[in-house]
Amino acid sequence: MDQINRLAIVGGIHGNELIGVYLVKKFQQNPELINRPSLETLTLLGNPQAIAQGRRYIDKDLNRCFYTESLPDAELESYEDLRAQEIQHLLQPRMDAIIDLHTTTTNMGLSLILSNTHPTLLRLAAYLSSINPLVKVSGHQQSKESGFLRSLCELGLVIEVGAVAQNVLNAELFQHTEQLVYGILDYFEWYNQGKTVPTNEVLTFYEYMGVIDYPRDEVGEILAMVHPRLQFQDYQPLNPGDPLFLTFAGEEIFYEGNSTVYPVFINEAAYYEKGIAMHLTKKQLIQDY
Amino acid sequence: MDQINRLAIVGGIHGNELIGVYLVKKFQQNPELINRPSLETLTLLGNPQAIAQGRRYIDKDLNRCFYTESLPDAELESYEDLRAQEIQHLLQPRMDAIIDLHTTTTNMGLSLILSNTHPTLLRLAAYLSSINPLVKVSGHQQSKESGFLRSLCELGLVIEVGAVAQNVLNAELFQHTEQLVYGILDYFEWYNQGKTVPTNEVLTFYEYMGVIDYPRDEVGEILAMVHPRLQFQDYQPLNPGDPLFLTFAGEEIFYEGNSTVYPVFINEAAYYEKGIAMHLTKKQLIQDY
Repeated sequence: MDQINRLAIVGGIHGNELIGVYLVKKFQQNPELINRPSLETLTLLGNPQAIAQGRRYIDKDLNRCFYTESLPDAELESYEDLRAQEIQHLLQPRMDAIIDLHTTTTNMGLSLILSNTHPTLLRLAAYLSSINPLVKVSGHQQSKESGFLRSLCELGLVIEVGAVAQNVLNAELFQHTEQLVYGILDYFEWYNQGKTVPTNEVLTFYEYMGVIDYPRDEVGEILAMVHPRLQFQDYQPLNPGDPLFLTFAGEEIFYEGNSTVYPVFINEAAYYEKGIAMHLTKKQLIQDY
Repeated sequence: MDQINRLAIVGGIHGNELIGVYLVKKFQQNPELINRPSLETLTLLGNPQAIAQGRRYIDKDLNRCFYTESLPDAELESYEDLRAQEIQHLLQPRMDAIIDLHTTTTNMGLSLILSNTHPTLLRLAAYLSSINPLVKVSGHQQSKESGFLRSLCELGLVIEVGAVAQNVLNAELFQHTEQLVYGILDYFEWYNQGKTVPTNEVLTFYEYMGVIDYPRDEVGEILAMVHPRLQFQDYQPLNPGDPLFLTFAGEEIFYEGNSTVYPVFINEAAYYEKGIAMHLTKKQLIQDY
């Protein structure tokens, strides 16, 4: 790959995820923090109306509006569809990389979600997990159209930190997110200079396999909660027969899969309406990248 | 006091606090769970439109609409003002007691907030903390008009559990809340039967003193976050000189009060807009009630 000359740092694609919002504001007030000699960095607040209202979105989830097919549609009318078109015009094709800042109500700690398994992204992720062992890395092995902002760019990634409630600033996670951003900027700067950056030789990669929904009745009302023993156990093994849900009456529901999986996004507030109680991943070790 | 014949259990006064919503639905589907021989129990979902939209409120905070002065106002128009009038007509003066179910993004565990220091409420709180030592009890020593639902009734109290994000069901806290409701029903049933219920002799009571806001600039934008060492430390002592906030630049701000206080509601998502970073309480031991 050529040089990485232009990079976008985006916060507030979801208006109630405050760490990204306030971090982008900090960078806008202190641009020297994100200056690197070979990098031009653009900062952007994704969804200004949703930020003003403290809501994830106004009409629909902005981070499901970046479909190659729908973006050029001149007849779209929702606030987020129009905002996605504006953001696309700002970022594409100028940007070589996009960092999209998110928070989650789940216990995903310091997570990187890669938009694909491009070797540069894998090496970046390996570097970041070498400087902070708490960093976890996930993504789809085959990237597919999901409408995510990060998909606007070959080198697109999400920093997803939690557990933090919607509309809450957690100072510790704010500082961790900030350090990860600096780590990414440093890595790309060294990359542009042709420096070899020492990283871990093996990258642990949690590959998305699918989702599990809550048990629901015929009208879609949920019938059970995430089991207390699974709550906050993101990235931990879930084995066949392990408790998965607890009904409101107190009955346990067990995982009936055939093999051990590693759930993430367990009990994310914003995913109830999407029909997602958790994502399942398989744990991979990647050595050659 | 006479018998406690009629009691209301209210959930979803805030539409994004799911434990109360789903617990009330459970009770409505299984009324035998809340049947007690001497008690008539009414269940109520406080803010149906906000529940449907997964928001705290539509126009304004419903739990600040129950002012004696404003409730009779025929010219009020907001959804919550009108809903408060409906709820008042349902509950007042029929109800002898009100249990209002809430959740918080703060680490308040299993909290009871009493609408006043009526001896029956203090004894009830002492009983509940005797059966579960994790229960914490707070309130105003002198009750003042605050527009809370619980103020509709002499025996009004809130069950406030956390930490849980808005729009999330936490199974463990759901079950704890449910057990506290049963404990209250049992206590009132015994009260009506004239039974003496053994309780702790001393009640630890966190009396509300006031609030602290976030540091803000001239347009009200916040300039700092709750300090990591204070985050989730609800009910723990805060001493003069202890860290209070951390600015976005990483500078520490310290507590400058004159004496030790016990903060609660530290970093509640819904209180940023109210100008409240935390409530301060003083820890009291109450022996004669």
